[in-house]
Amino acid sequence: MHFVVIGGSDAGISAALRAHELSPQSEVTVLLADAFPNFSICGLPFYLSGETPDWRDLAHRKTFEGITVLRDSPVEKIDPPRKRVFYRTGAGQVSEMAYDRLLIATGARPLMARFPGATLPGVYPLHTMDDSFRVNRHIEENHPRSAVIVGSGYIGLEMADALTHRGIEVTLFGRSETVLPTVDKELGRLVEEELQSHGVTVESGAEVTDIEEREGALLVHAAGGKSARGELVLLALGVEPNAELARAAGVATGQKGAICVNRRMETNVRDVFAAGDCVETWHRVLDGYSYLPLGTTAHKQGRVAGENAVGGTREFQGSLGTQVVKVFELAVARTGLRDREAVEDFNPLTVESSHFDHKAYYPGAKRLYIRVTGDRTTGRLLGAQILGHWQAEVAKRIDVFATALFHGMRVEELNDLDLSYTPPLGSPWDAIQMAADAWTRAVAELQRND
Amino acid sequence: MHFVVIGGSDAGISAALRAHELSPQSEVTVLLADAFPNFSICGLPFYLSGETPDWRDLAHRKTFEGITVLRDSPVEKIDPPRKRVFYRTGAGQVSEMAYDRLLIATGARPLMARFPGATLPGVYPLHTMDDSFRVNRHIEENHPRSAVIVGSGYIGLEMADALTHRGIEVTLFGRSETVLPTVDKELGRLVEEELQSHGVTVESGAEVTDIEEREGALLVHAAGGKSARGELVLLALGVEPNAELARAAGVATGQKGAICVNRRMETNVRDVFAAGDCVETWHRVLDGYSYLPLGTTAHKQGRVAGENAVGGTREFQGSLGTQVVKVFELAVARTGLRDREAVEDFNPLTVESSHFDHKAYYPGAKRLYIRVTGDRTTGRLLGAQILGHWQAEVAKRIDVFATALFHGMRVEELNDLDLSYTPPLGSPWDAIQMAADAWTRAVAELQRND
Repeated sequence: MHFVVIGGSDAGISAALRAHELSPQSEVTVLLADAFPNFSICGLPFYLSGETPDWRDLAHRKTFEGITVLRDSPVEKIDPPRKRVFYRTGAGQVSEMAYDRLLIATGARPLMARFPGATLPGVYPLHTMDDSFRVNRHIEENHPRSAVIVGSGYIGLEMADALTHRGIEVTLFGRSETVLPTVDKELGRLVEEELQSHGVTVESGAEVTDIEEREGALLVHAAGGKSARGELVLLALGVEPNAELARAAGVATGQKGAICVNRRMETNVRDVFAAGDCVETWHRVLDGYSYLPLGTTAHKQGRVAGENAVGGTREFQGSLGTQVVKVFELAVARTGLRDREAVEDFNPLTVESSHFDHKAYYPGAKRLYIRVTGDRTTGRLLGAQILGHWQAEVAKRIDVFATALFHGMRVEELNDLDLSYTPPLGSPWDAIQMAADAWTRAVAELQRND
Repeated sequence: MHFVVIGGSDAGISAALRAHELSPQSEVTVLLADAFPNFSICGLPFYLSGETPDWRDLAHRKTFEGITVLRDSPVEKIDPPRKRVFYRTGAGQVSEMAYDRLLIATGARPLMARFPGATLPGVYPLHTMDDSFRVNRHIEENHPRSAVIVGSGYIGLEMADALTHRGIEVTLFGRSETVLPTVDKELGRLVEEELQSHGVTVESGAEVTDIEEREGALLVHAAGGKSARGELVLLALGVEPNAELARAAGVATGQKGAICVNRRMETNVRDVFAAGDCVETWHRVLDGYSYLPLGTTAHKQGRVAGENAVGGTREFQGSLGTQVVKVFELAVARTGLRDREAVEDFNPLTVESSHFDHKAYYPGAKRLYIRVTGDRTTGRLLGAQILGHWQAEVAKRIDVFATALFHGMRVEELNDLDLSYTPPLGSPWDAIQMAADAWTRAVAELQRND
């Protein structure tokens, strides 16, 4: 049995390792387009900030026992009827390889800017190891004192933090009403305050229209007349699935062009699996598919695909879109759905409340802002968002919500959870439970007024 | 409807507030033995350490809208047939009060030392606000340079930390093999190292036999010949239920003398509920009752009792024994069962593994030691213990385990949870999941070798 994996990032390597673990007698080959198997792309901002000085440390792992990893071997074509893949070798020739089972784990690529000037020297996307080497080289050679970041999602914010950490003055353009459009704007505004308090100039609701070179620097213009000058421009406009190779082989694609898979991570083509940022992801709360590229999901989907490729019958248990980002001193996290994402399938209500992370009488208590989204009709938990100091256990608190959500709990039932308590680290009713209670009371209040 | 509550700590006040919330027309009276309604007894070590200088800040709440709180009104007798309670008033007289529903929330009291010298001047138990005032006065008036703590459970360890924080040299005697016998000794030993590294002398496996006064100080002797000198001795030997009042009124009691209740928190006596540290607690994993006095549980049980007292039908969803303690720079947490607690009902196996709290390439990664207990036969999660730096999200990680345990997950299924990830705060597979995976691999390995 030969299991061939196209792509050596989270999904591909997870699948390969899992297949080898369960079926050591199978042959497992990973074909990698670049030279960086299983690097932590999420770590690029910390390499560029200088906090992770050696890029080699970004590798999730450095050895791949039992599997064959072919670097610099981009695949050009898949031939499902003949069960062959064709890939370019280092020497520039095209080789073919037979597979019994195939995994397409080709990931995502950055959305290209459509405005003029996006390819000027000094303007960089940031998605691959090579991208980050280019940016790092630019910084080391040119010592820019100012930078403009276009895009105020996760990468944009992390890069604003990273470049500020490196002493570069940052202007951040985002077209959404507030930064971090993956959380509600009430929290987005608090993130903007955090950015501003660290010297970042934030321009939200500002769609960039063009970049021009002027007097040795780059001038970024946005609709509405705003503009900012930078000696370096980073584009962080989000990603799209890298699915051309699959599509050319007859693999069906869906939302945003992502590959359609079932919960076993099988495509419509026999013996061809797909996983990671190139696929549509099954959402556990929506009970439907959406495009939600996340490293955690890629790992899980890869593991499921690897298990099934060698004869397993495992199902992907779904994404909740759980995520967290650190921006300066803040952590901002979410899981599940927000009002606008839930409104088609549910009767959602979001209630924000604020609680200390631990008993206020113990020094260092920090405020958490927690937004709970629930279904007014059934009382079911639909999602949660938390913002607070990054050392106030924001990330693992969202994980408690995520675990509750995984099990379809009602908001009110969170009060039944037996959570830990000691005054330096919590409250007898944890902030999670106080936030759930605030939601329940708000619903009761609305019902009284109806 | 008159709902009378005996006891004004966590269970009693929670019940009273919940009853009033759901039934504002009901009369709710709390009879309090002392003058400190709803104080955080868990906060006493931080008052004594000086970290919470004003004891008044230890009040969970200071106003009790809609309920009547009678301070310094210890109840002497309950007369269920006539539905009356008799209590002493400030003037020393005995008054009677009629109830429709009654809650007994009389809590626990410290286990008394049975050895000679336990009542010498300078030897203090620590359980009530008054106890802590006495200890504080002793410290302020006598400036002891050394102290001996007898008992190495939660309170003993917190007091070792607190007194060290206050510049007092501490010797800690515990009769268990390692400190903190509520966790496995592998973790207990790491806690001992932490104590020692902060200057605490730790004597484990040392049962105290007597205390004598010598040359103006106290000499504490333990079996085996160990002894230690201290100018102050604290006794932290654990607690027992305060259930005499209930028993005298015909209320049934069970393990360790704690009051028997069903999951609605009803006793065997009509219209008499009980909750908190004076009752047997239903354990969700054991599906049986045990004595597990914890503030979090008291709050939950009180809430359930309060709801049912005014006509509700809520059931207590059970304790998992989830708890956490901070000792100097460490947090140690547990939920569910350990091997020895599970062995009668399950086929338990505990596997320890160690993982960083976040990606090691981001600065400040700290090691977590995680012990997962699962049932070898069914794969079901039975419990978990975590030790790590107190800012490494130990507490909320145990809460993720607790939430998984609440839902009866199998250990392997933890890998399906969609948990948050960013390099400064986690890993694509969180430490929780890596620990679950270590357990699953260990079981597979054992099965191969069987």
